[in-house]
Amino acid sequence: MQAVFWMTVGLLCLAPGLSLAQRPRPCRSPLLYTGSLTVATQNEKLWAVGKYAYDAVNQRVHLGEIGHYNNKSFIFDTLFLFDEGVLYEINRHNRTCVKKALQSDFHPMEVPKDAAFVSQVVLGSSSSPGQGLLVNNWWGDIPGTKGHYLVSFTEFGCFPVSALSQTKDFGWVSISYYDNILGAEPSWFIPPPFCEDATLVENEDGKVTDFFSVFH
Amino acid sequence: MQAVFWMTVGLLCLAPGLSLAQRPRPCRSPLLYTGSLTVATQNEKLWAVGKYAYDAVNQRVHLGEIGHYNNKSFIFDTLFLFDEGVLYEINRHNRTCVKKALQSDFHPMEVPKDAAFVSQVVLGSSSSPGQGLLVNNWWGDIPGTKGHYLVSFTEFGCFPVSALSQTKDFGWVSISYYDNILGAEPSWFIPPPFCEDATLVENEDGKVTDFFSVFH
Repeated sequence: MQAVFWMTVGLLCLAPGLSLAQRPRPCRSPLLYTGSLTVATQNEKLWAVGKYAYDAVNQRVHLGEIGHYNNKSFIFDTLFLFDEGVLYEINRHNRTCVKKALQSDFHPMEVPKDAAFVSQVVLGSSSSPGQGLLVNNWWGDIPGTKGHYLVSFTEFGCFPVSALSQTKDFGWVSISYYDNILGAEPSWFIPPPFCEDATLVENEDGKVTDFFSVFH
Repeated sequence: MQAVFWMTVGLLCLAPGLSLAQRPRPCRSPLLYTGSLTVATQNEKLWAVGKYAYDAVNQRVHLGEIGHYNNKSFIFDTLFLFDEGVLYEINRHNRTCVKKALQSDFHPMEVPKDAAFVSQVVLGSSSSPGQGLLVNNWWGDIPGTKGHYLVSFTEFGCFPVSALSQTKDFGWVSISYYDNILGAEPSWFIPPPFCEDATLVENEDGKVTDFFSVFH
């Protein structure tokens, strides 16, 4: 009887350690992949669908979107070359190109190190193989604002699944990520030929563009 | 050369047929399962997390939620017995129970037959096993209102993943479903002992409660 008691005490002492070991840790997404995304905002000002190619090795992102902003449709096709400090706003229809300075550092796609773990859940079902996806949910403060974020990454592979972030301009911004495929064609990160002669322009207010200001 | 031409014509003619055959069809979820859900609304009036047990064989649903409605916290614990035409609002803390008539027919969890197929996507990634979940997205009109819905179900197993629906009271209502497990304990559909003496009460306005009015 005493043995059972001490075994129970032992298990109870062990339990918190086990649960800590099993607690997911913030992860960084694969270095090279492509995928699709949908963006929607709480105030319905912005809605977009798009595709991205992400290369953390050479610090390059190509993002293409079509959508509505303030009831006007837009096409967004921008190549961010962080290691060169430039971005290209590409208009394939007119074969024109605007080259701008990109002051922002490259931010890898990851769960921020200081994010708080919220929960681990299975989208779909864990009852049969192929019917569920194990994801981790994380919560945190957006630096420099009073806003918060809630992001969801897959447990296996660390692919982004969804991101909710609080903004001043849009209220909550919801981004869904899907159709992620490991790898990317190198050509997606090369500016098209008609960009070759583009000269570096500064923004109207004289400030250089950073990664986030292009979305506003 | 002519053979290649006709082969091409043949393939082009075949292509629409193939794509029709591969187009997902509206599906009905498994008959018996349990899962969790999160509810959030565009106007931020309502926020809730909960668990459900779903039994389409005997037309029973048990839904438990905790959340905030109009800045007040609430606990919702309701057992819907559609075949008996009653629901039980259960208060486990006070061991009290309200029994109400349930006029609504049982609606199985499914993609409505007239829903329009939007897209098939992989949440996460299809590059490695266990890192992705194949889901189908469907769009439609909510009967009797001018609202629309967008629902997402897994391709394999037909489990609900998410639902967005337009409402008058809340704007867009977003529900995420997860942790679905096939099967359910029968006891979850039996009213607790302290419900035995509950007498049938009508709503204040004399109308009987239907499945959707309990959420408002």
